[in-house]
Amino acid sequence: MPELRKDPILGRWIIISTERGKRPTDFIVEKNRIKGGFCPLCPGNENTTPPEVLSYGQKVPAPNTPGWSLRAVPNKYPALVIEGDLGKVGEGLYDKMNGIGAHEVIIETPDHNESFTHLPPDRMIQVFWAFRDRITDLSHDPRFRYVMVFKNYGAAAGASLEHSHSQLVALPILPRMIVSELDGSLSYYKYKERCIFCDIIRQEISQSVRVVCENDEFIAISPWAPRSPFEMWVLPKTHSSSYTSLGEKSFPRLTDIFSECLQRLDKCIPNVPYNFVLHTSPLRSQPLEHFHWHFEIMPKLTMVAGFEWGSGFYINPVPPEDSAKYLREVKL
Amino acid sequence: MPELRKDPILGRWIIISTERGKRPTDFIVEKNRIKGGFCPLCPGNENTTPPEVLSYGQKVPAPNTPGWSLRAVPNKYPALVIEGDLGKVGEGLYDKMNGIGAHEVIIETPDHNESFTHLPPDRMIQVFWAFRDRITDLSHDPRFRYVMVFKNYGAAAGASLEHSHSQLVALPILPRMIVSELDGSLSYYKYKERCIFCDIIRQEISQSVRVVCENDEFIAISPWAPRSPFEMWVLPKTHSSSYTSLGEKSFPRLTDIFSECLQRLDKCIPNVPYNFVLHTSPLRSQPLEHFHWHFEIMPKLTMVAGFEWGSGFYINPVPPEDSAKYLREVKL
Repeated sequence: MPELRKDPILGRWIIISTERGKRPTDFIVEKNRIKGGFCPLCPGNENTTPPEVLSYGQKVPAPNTPGWSLRAVPNKYPALVIEGDLGKVGEGLYDKMNGIGAHEVIIETPDHNESFTHLPPDRMIQVFWAFRDRITDLSHDPRFRYVMVFKNYGAAAGASLEHSHSQLVALPILPRMIVSELDGSLSYYKYKERCIFCDIIRQEISQSVRVVCENDEFIAISPWAPRSPFEMWVLPKTHSSSYTSLGEKSFPRLTDIFSECLQRLDKCIPNVPYNFVLHTSPLRSQPLEHFHWHFEIMPKLTMVAGFEWGSGFYINPVPPEDSAKYLREVKL
Repeated sequence: MPELRKDPILGRWIIISTERGKRPTDFIVEKNRIKGGFCPLCPGNENTTPPEVLSYGQKVPAPNTPGWSLRAVPNKYPALVIEGDLGKVGEGLYDKMNGIGAHEVIIETPDHNESFTHLPPDRMIQVFWAFRDRITDLSHDPRFRYVMVFKNYGAAAGASLEHSHSQLVALPILPRMIVSELDGSLSYYKYKERCIFCDIIRQEISQSVRVVCENDEFIAISPWAPRSPFEMWVLPKTHSSSYTSLGEKSFPRLTDIFSECLQRLDKCIPNVPYNFVLHTSPLRSQPLEHFHWHFEIMPKLTMVAGFEWGSGFYINPVPPEDSAKYLREVKL
């Protein structure tokens, strides 16, 4: 059973994923690389993954057989496990709990060689639906407080399989980053009685210099204080705290802007490794006036070294105004 | 002039280091690697670095010429620059200031091929003295609030030069990580009227399972909630909030335990890339009852990917009890 442990000074949680237990010799030539050869995510290999929890595109439902256009399955090597109780206990001044959670893989396409960036809109839209469907489903489990949806693209960004996929992790505690965002935006709201993200959108539209692209419903910006060159945030223009409240009509607009952002990035820096993460409100929370869901897209272009580890500061060699200009002006 | 920018939601600062300005094409084949060939840190090449701010070991002082055993110089490509005022201004709801600070390189040995891990004690001790001397000197500049001392060893941990060196950055603001540690330890102190680090040391000694090694003055542990396999913290056993108050007699004991930690790590995972960071109290602060200076040593063995970026959680495949056991039992 994996274990969740809390740093007693910082309140930072870490997952001891004993399922992946390793001895020192396992690290000697450790380098992340994409596994070639047999692909467990390809059609025909459905029996090599745990049974699916979602599939789209089959005319007649036939679970775990080819014919799907998108499929979600539990991760075969999960960081957290689904069965068990939380088992919160102390050990002297330390806190821990069982590593309970869900860890799922969303297989974005049956085609092994198709990249997410270049999925046609009618196929990419399914990925955004899958995020919503899985979050909604997992929100019924009272043990979980948050679902973290993310994608690692490219070995340098942490991907270990080539076949296009994203992931989600359902967590029994609110992650520290989301707590910080909720706290930060709440303290702004208390002072101004306005959502800070809505204010950011207003300022970005009026200043124009950090806008990458926009449509009637969404805006993509290079944020004011980006951790990485070419970082982008995609936000709905109308206030909304939860991704799961996104209406059917908005999915094509989200798909359009997201696809455009990734294509612009790919034109600027071909095949750049990246991560994206969905930031949304905690499971089962009421609509929040102060929080605003969004995606953060982080190209993997700089290193986290001693200075960043120690300070929590990031050093970024490209001002976001320059990033936005490059991204905006590149020919698609 | 580099710029410091504050994320308005999280309060996280980032450095836009325009001195290192880059266009998208500069990233296309970007991979961190150690530069070979000419070494600006070797004796005889003193004129290729900015003039030194410190040197040890010369019988007759002769700045910027060979004969030194340790040398500190400003970084030739600094993330922050030393001249100028802070220039704090707002831009709508955003905050920024000039990227004022010091960025120095501590050249730990004249011998290009000598590693920090294997420096003889009478040479390693100079490095710890240099940290103290440089922090003390920089504390006289009222613009600076903190000096972050760190080392990146190996390309994967962010080093770009082979010649053994560590770095320091003097900052005009308190880094978020240190603020979190100060806040976390203060809230414990308010409740218990004890230093949480002192309590951790007591618990670790009594439990024994996470102790790597100790002597009469220092202890090295695998922390309860480590971000990375084989992470180690080195702490003084007697309460002290500031590294600069370390007395002359304690330097040999610090050198002994630090050297032993790195040698044990190197025996477990030969030549592993790592970072270490000194955590100490802010410049010019009074002695703090709640904070306890220490070093954190982080081997570079796992990746920071989408999940970590989004959550602030870390996934660690090795329990610290196992790490400590491997480190403790390996033959030196």
